[in-house]
Amino acid sequence: MSSVNGFEPWVILLAGGIGSRFWPASTPRRPKQFMPLASSRPLIEDTLERAYAIAASSRVLIVAGGHLRDVIAEYLPDFPTDQLLVEPEARGTAPALAWAAVEIERRASDPARAVMIAMPSDHVIQPLNRFVATLERAITAAGDLGRLITLGIRPSRPETAYGYIEVGPATKAEAFEVARFVEKPDMERARKYVEAGRFLWNSGIFVWRPGTLLDELRTHTPEIAAELERLESGDVPGFFAMMPKNLTIDYGLLERSSKIAVVEAEFDWDDLGAWKAILRLRETDARGNIVVGDGVARDCDGCIIWAEDGPVVVWGVENMIVARAGGITFVAPIERTGELKQLIEDLPGELKKGDA
Amino acid sequence: MSSVNGFEPWVILLAGGIGSRFWPASTPRRPKQFMPLASSRPLIEDTLERAYAIAASSRVLIVAGGHLRDVIAEYLPDFPTDQLLVEPEARGTAPALAWAAVEIERRASDPARAVMIAMPSDHVIQPLNRFVATLERAITAAGDLGRLITLGIRPSRPETAYGYIEVGPATKAEAFEVARFVEKPDMERARKYVEAGRFLWNSGIFVWRPGTLLDELRTHTPEIAAELERLESGDVPGFFAMMPKNLTIDYGLLERSSKIAVVEAEFDWDDLGAWKAILRLRETDARGNIVVGDGVARDCDGCIIWAEDGPVVVWGVENMIVARAGGITFVAPIERTGELKQLIEDLPGELKKGDA
Repeated sequence: MSSVNGFEPWVILLAGGIGSRFWPASTPRRPKQFMPLASSRPLIEDTLERAYAIAASSRVLIVAGGHLRDVIAEYLPDFPTDQLLVEPEARGTAPALAWAAVEIERRASDPARAVMIAMPSDHVIQPLNRFVATLERAITAAGDLGRLITLGIRPSRPETAYGYIEVGPATKAEAFEVARFVEKPDMERARKYVEAGRFLWNSGIFVWRPGTLLDELRTHTPEIAAELERLESGDVPGFFAMMPKNLTIDYGLLERSSKIAVVEAEFDWDDLGAWKAILRLRETDARGNIVVGDGVARDCDGCIIWAEDGPVVVWGVENMIVARAGGITFVAPIERTGELKQLIEDLPGELKKGDA
Repeated sequence: MSSVNGFEPWVILLAGGIGSRFWPASTPRRPKQFMPLASSRPLIEDTLERAYAIAASSRVLIVAGGHLRDVIAEYLPDFPTDQLLVEPEARGTAPALAWAAVEIERRASDPARAVMIAMPSDHVIQPLNRFVATLERAITAAGDLGRLITLGIRPSRPETAYGYIEVGPATKAEAFEVARFVEKPDMERARKYVEAGRFLWNSGIFVWRPGTLLDELRTHTPEIAAELERLESGDVPGFFAMMPKNLTIDYGLLERSSKIAVVEAEFDWDDLGAWKAILRLRETDARGNIVVGDGVARDCDGCIIWAEDGPVVVWGVENMIVARAGGITFVAPIERTGELKQLIEDLPGELKKGDA
């Protein structure tokens, strides 16, 4: 769409990530957005398709770390290089989105009509038409209200790996006040949130005018406010060099601003936070196994066998992930893969990076 | 030793095997005798060392299938090629031992004083001095009695994977009558055998005069008797071509002959019948894991991690074998590895053979 109720949508794909969640298949050099996790094509291709359903192709930007330049060129050879914003250093989502907002204000024919949609490049979202319908509501609300809109997902299960948003009263547009953001809860609280009905998962998909973002950053985020002029003058490396190590948009702005609102999504959503997510998304065999590549499951139940670089034979095993990728074999109970990041931190460097 | 009580010991190492028990680390091209399973050197090297402790080096023969010629040359480069008897076709232990007996009668300065000791090349036996002492008794008994002696092992556990020998009365030498051979029992019977005290495991190590063997084969094994002349005339390929597919010495002769006897071994013995055997033989870490090669065990208990061709990371898993060798990754509960042969039969040919 080139315009929604007079607003001009811009999409920012956030393509960062250190590739720990689907290790060893995902690595810093191939974070999960480049893996064919939900279908036979990489997640980032599906994400781009969604982006093009919302915004004109010239208004889709990708923000990524320099370590991903080659892999993006490999997987998305047709993506225009001048729409790829390569971060000089990875400093978290807040500096990345500030840069994107400045770029949109610079590129837009009428910056006051621009609305930017920022989304991770590694989520699974279906179906497309309900995604588009949700975004139309969110773009209109962001444009009309001049607020920072976050998309909320109605919980389908008590999930302890997500942050929650407690929804407040309706605003004037099709969005609601945010009563509060809630950190990842324990299982008992997660169950209560699901029952209560007024809690949504925080999707990490944001919709706002670039001007609203920059104004709110000026007001609430001194680390960025102090350097915004540098960014606007075009000194991107200088700006990033002054940023703290990891300034997320949630912590750095959304939890501080009062100009926030939430739009409930109509689509099905999965952030593929860990290996076990693909059991929800891919079709299993009769005994609940997912076998990818050169894998063989014999007398197995509920296993994920991910055989990307050589045959893997698994026999008489339950609820286990066996992954062979990047030269590394990894075996663990699927339930534990939510803690994978901690395991990897503890491993020798060559294993961490993959391609051992 | 060049002689034991006037008898001249000859050792026959049986180096066959299709490499299914330690698959994928063992394969038809590298059966387990070439694996460093019990120590850091291949089992067959340890076996040769034992052979040289019993017999003069010129009286140690290896009988092996043609598929092992290269691997023997690789692992035992100093072994004299004229002491390697390469079977034209693998037809089981009975034809192999008949051929060895004929060879010994041909090579021995005084065939009537020769005693042959036939042993698999892939057992773990310790300590050497008690092995030698047992063999001295067995050689003397075989020479004096003119019987087919089998070495029996006092059971250390109720084992269902072995055949048992019920021991009868003493003979005139330091050997006992064999009351009967018992096939692999179920667990209940195995427990009874261990309690009864008069049952020994059938080790598959045999001691006899070559003349005794050939005489008994003539009497009890018509398949071989009919072709012995051909063998003695030097037509080895012709002899093997007439043999049935798999004629074992146990079925083909020992269960039929009455000129048998058993000598109880004084040494510790393990036939390494399956992956789990190495848990008995190798030192484990504090949580009972064995990690070989490029393996990493984190929060694991009782696992075998055999990482021969690339890193293997196992996390939070109990009593599992994770093997990566010959290009193949294999995962299964250790308890099931006793049935590995059946699993492999069912796999595609490239996987069966290893080096996929």
